[in-house]
This record gives sequence, C-alpha cells and structure tokens, in this order.
Amino acid sequence: MTDAKYGVVGIGNAIVDIIARCDEAFLSNHAMEKGFMQLIDSARADELYAHMGPGKEQSGGSVANSCAGIASFGGTCAFIGRVAGDQFGKVFSHDITSVGVTYDTPHVDVGLPTARCLVLVTPDGERTMNTYLGASTELGASEIDGDLIASAQVTYLEGYLFDKEEAKSAFHEAAKFARAAGRNVALTLSDAFCVDRHRDDFLGLVRGGVDILFANETEITSLYQMNSFEDAVEAVRSECEIAVLTRSEAGAVIVSGNDTFYVPAEPVEKVADATGAGDLYAAGFLFGLTNGYDLETCGKLGSLSASEIISHIGARPEANLKELAQTKGLLG
Amino acid sequence: MTDAKYGVVGIGNAIVDIIARCDEAFLSNHAMEKGFMQLIDSARADELYAHMGPGKEQSGGSVANSCAGIASFGGTCAFIGRVAGDQFGKVFSHDITSVGVTYDTPHVDVGLPTARCLVLVTPDGERTMNTYLGASTELGASEIDGDLIASAQVTYLEGYLFDKEEAKSAFHEAAKFARAAGRNVALTLSDAFCVDRHRDDFLGLVRGGVDILFANETEITSLYQMNSFEDAVEAVRSECEIAVLTRSEAGAVIVSGNDTFYVPAEPVEKVADATGAGDLYAAGFLFGLTNGYDLETCGKLGSLSASEIISHIGARPEANLKELAQTKGLLG
Repeated sequence: MTDAKYGVVGIGNAIVDIIARCDEAFLSNHAMEKGFMQLIDSARADELYAHMGPGKEQSGGSVANSCAGIASFGGTCAFIGRVAGDQFGKVFSHDITSVGVTYDTPHVDVGLPTARCLVLVTPDGERTMNTYLGASTELGASEIDGDLIASAQVTYLEGYLFDKEEAKSAFHEAAKFARAAGRNVALTLSDAFCVDRHRDDFLGLVRGGVDILFANETEITSLYQMNSFEDAVEAVRSECEIAVLTRSEAGAVIVSGNDTFYVPAEPVEKVADATGAGDLYAAGFLFGLTNGYDLETCGKLGSLSASEIISHIGARPEANLKELAQTKGLLG
Repeated sequence: MTDAKYGVVGIGNAIVDIIARCDEAFLSNHAMEKGFMQLIDSARADELYAHMGPGKEQSGGSVANSCAGIASFGGTCAFIGRVAGDQFGKVFSHDITSVGVTYDTPHVDVGLPTARCLVLVTPDGERTMNTYLGASTELGASEIDGDLIASAQVTYLEGYLFDKEEAKSAFHEAAKFARAAGRNVALTLSDAFCVDRHRDDFLGLVRGGVDILFANETEITSLYQMNSFEDAVEAVRSECEIAVLTRSEAGAVIVSGNDTFYVPAEPVEKVADATGAGDLYAAGFLFGLTNGYDLETCGKLGSLSASEIISHIGARPEANLKELAQTKGLLG
C-alpha cells in the first residue's frame, strides 16, 4: 500500500466541543445517560448551554480527532466533513489544517451553523456528550471525492454519520470508492446507542467489506446482541479482517484471523477527561498499520495516544505523539 | 460600604482568547514582544491565526477574568463590556453569567465581530498576546449605567480601554459616577506598552481619584519613568490610597499611606500558562477588600488565586476559589 499519497482519509462529523465540568447531579437533573452521546436539537442545545458552567471550546469530532492524532504521529492524513462559514467553522478548519491534516470540504454559507457538542465532564473524568449536528448533516454523497479516497491506504468512517440519511449515503459512497480502488475500509461503531439505532446497517457493512473495525466493549456486545464480551470477540473474528476492541483501563483486544493480541492500557496518573480516548486509540493503531508496524505495536501506539488524551481536558493531542512514541521506544 | 448591592463592577474589554502553544522562534518570526500585549487589526489577526497551531477558545478579557475570579470567591460582581451577536459573543456572555457575574451590556448585531485575543504560550509558560478589539471598541459613555456603578463598592477599570477614544470616555464617565456616589475607583495599568501609550492620561487619573491601583513592576516603573522599582513604590505611595504592585514569583508589595506589606507568591509546581496571573491577583485582592479583610489578607487572597490560574491553561479559574481559600485558612 506504499503508493498511496495518504495513510488515512477520515470521514466524520466536523464539530466544535464546548467542554465544561459538572457534578453527577447535573447529569441526572438534565436526563443525560452518563458516558454516552446524545443527539440534541438546536432548542435543547440552547437550553442545556444556558444551564452549563463556563466552557472551553476546542475542535472535536470523533474521526477528526483521530486524524489530528495521526498527523501528530507524523502520518499523512486527510479529512472530509462539513462546517458552516461561522466562527466555529473557522475554528474547526484552522485547527485541523494547522496540525497538517488536508481539509478541503467546502463550507456552507447558508443554513445550519457548525456542529457543536456540549461535553460534560464529571469529577471522575467521564464525559457525557450532547451533540447538535447542524451543518455536519449537510455532508452528502456529492462531497465524497473519489480521487481522494483512492489516494489513501485506509478510508476511516465514523459510525455517528449513520444518524443522518444524507451522511449515510456519503458514507456508503466513500466505502464503494475505497473498495473499487483496492483500498481498505475502517469503521468505528462510535457509541453503543448509535449501534442500537443502526444495528442492521452496521452488520451489513461489517459483513460486506469493513477491513478494520474499531469498537469498545459495550459497542461490540451491542452489535452482536451478546451478553459476553468473549462471545462478541469470536463473532467479529469470523466477519472482519482486523477488529480492535478497546476496554478502557483493561486494555484492548486485537483479533485478526486466528491471532489474538492483548494490549494493556498505558497507565495514567489521573483521568482528567476521557473525551477522545477511543478516537486517539484508533489514531495510534491506524498510524501504525499504514506505516507497516505489526498489530501488537499498532495496539501499543493506540494505548499510548489514548493515555495522552485522557490526561488533559479536550480530545486533541497536546503532546507531539511521534516524540512520545519515540521516547517509549515504539518508533525509531 | 456594606449597603452596596455589588462588591465590584468591572469595566473592560469583552474578549474570547484563542490559546495555542508555540516555540520561542514563532514569536521572533512574527515580530512579537514576548510577555506583552499587542493590538492588531483584522488582517493581522487572520494572518497570525493562519500560522498558529491549534487553539483552545476560552472567554478572557483582563477585568472580565477578575470578575469571574471574584464570583468564584463568592463575591458579588457585575461586568460592563461589549460583544457582538456572533458565536464568540455568545460564548463570552454564557461564560461570565454562568459563574454568577451580572452581565447586561447589550450586544451589537451589526458591525465588528466579538474581540479575540491570540494568546501564544511558550514552553516556559509565558504568554504573548495579540488582541483584535472588534466590538469591544464600540463600548461608549452611553453604555455606562450610573445606577449600576453607584450600587457597587468598587468600580474596577481596565487600562486597556484607553486604547480607544470611545472606550476611554466610557471609562471617565464610570469614574465620575463612582466618585459622585462616594464609591471607590480601582484601575489596572494592564500592560507596560499600554502605559507608554497613555502615560499622561494614566497619571492624571491616578492623581485625580484612583483609590486602588494595580500594576506590575514594569508597568509602575514605566508610569513614573523610573529605573528603580523602589523609587516607583515611593512615588505611587504619595498619590494613591492603596497601590498593589505585583512582581510575579517575587510576590507583591502593597502600599497604603505609611504602611507597606510584602506578600510572597504562592508557590506552584509548574507554570503552565501565565495568562491571567495579574487579573486573578486583582480578583483575590478586591474580593478581600470589599469583604472587610485587612490589606495583608487581601494580598494573600490575590497570591492564592494567581497561583491557581497559572497552574493550568486559560485565564478563568477552574477551582472553586472560595473553597481553595478556606482550605488555606484564609476564609472562614
């Protein structure tokens, strides 16, 4: 796969996070399911925001975070996702291009504002997300640049995109281009509720041509509607070339054919904010994979970048991940 | 002064900070004076932003930061400053009201966008600021609510406002209302270059009715054009009822009549970002003063809140300053 211009092209929601601390009572008082992502409309976004404490704004979006991580490892990466021409759109565009990710999706000047996610961080570092998708939902199949997809070793798709019909068609279009060009397709299941909303679609995709699947424990057991993680591992083994299954502090399980690798989590002193842990795990893994590393090293690169992201507020890396991996002896 | 509704009403620029890390070379390559604030126009803001790394957005503005700090101590506070009706304006308004500061200045729907400050943080934690004032400059004398001013023990004015004629007239109007109501006027000199630009105006104000003056070492020596800090201390002693002179890790000197208090800096493990150190020193001091504490305790409250702000990125407190001060035995 060395003739590709990009290691990875990511397709996902283009979001600005508004991150605020809150106590446990705030979640229950506002009917939020702790640790999950909830889609909200504009009115609910305004109402929640009015009750939240002061925020920090930072570019987010699951696959966009992964792309920023891949660039921080020194990887080549492009991103496709929709913003509006407003201030948050400018923030999103600036941040992702300034770290070296190619980002050319034209913005929309009329219509919905740039997507925002109200991220509530409880004292234990867990994050609960409320996403108003706004302009992100205006990504359609026509925005998918076939040449760009063909120029990347891996096309990495965000499961959250399934929440809107237009974006779902963009998603399928991208997978089609990638397969036609003989490239690999990677998918993250994004969220257990998201899996619940689109189980059949996801199963169809996994069976029909996803080469690399990312999921955490609740997502993979939800996908196969199994109670046991071990059973879900065996189910996905027979359907995907590579499955990367993360279990927070219990580390990750990577299955590929008859091989199974258990990669421990990189220890952190204190979880400041769990936002982006899965996104950055995928970043490390995909950077490793597209640069010829073995699966176990890919997993270790994932654990390392996940550990960096959870030790501070926000889902974009603050350290240079390449240097961090070199310090740990994972990269030359 | 216990009949007042507010301890403090602050008047200053309403700004959203865009905070990014950079190396020393970035500052010299872009002709920035390390550690100072530079006013920039819209074109320069766009150009600098295009070259900066990824940012974190957070509400800022010197006196606005102080107001947020006073509220975090449990003090009563109001803020006057101008934003636009754009996304950054909404962020600013949300953040300051969500911490309990009264903020009623109407926004402007046409004209310049909300002010932003590009804050570059070097590895030593020092911050260098580039401010595009935008809508902030549209604050005029007519926005100054005399009843609000009269309802606060102290009216706290930001020196940076002197950079625009309209804002300067608002500033004088506020000081006049405060004096007429028998209230105190506090002023921060803001920045040594700002003092340089407006030395005669500042000297006139200090001599004509500033009760409490905040300045750091470079600002106070610049005001009096003296080489020695000690000489500047004696100069201000004869002109101000209370002068609070901060010297970073060397602590602060508080002079009032014949009294002089030396208050050491609160030690911090590592300076993550010096942004807001002076603003939060003023917050602690003014909270103390308007709640009947002696000058030395006011200084200690200032040191404590300055230490909190420099241990993390951003110029708004993350800890509850009241609880922090209680832990240290400074508040009951």
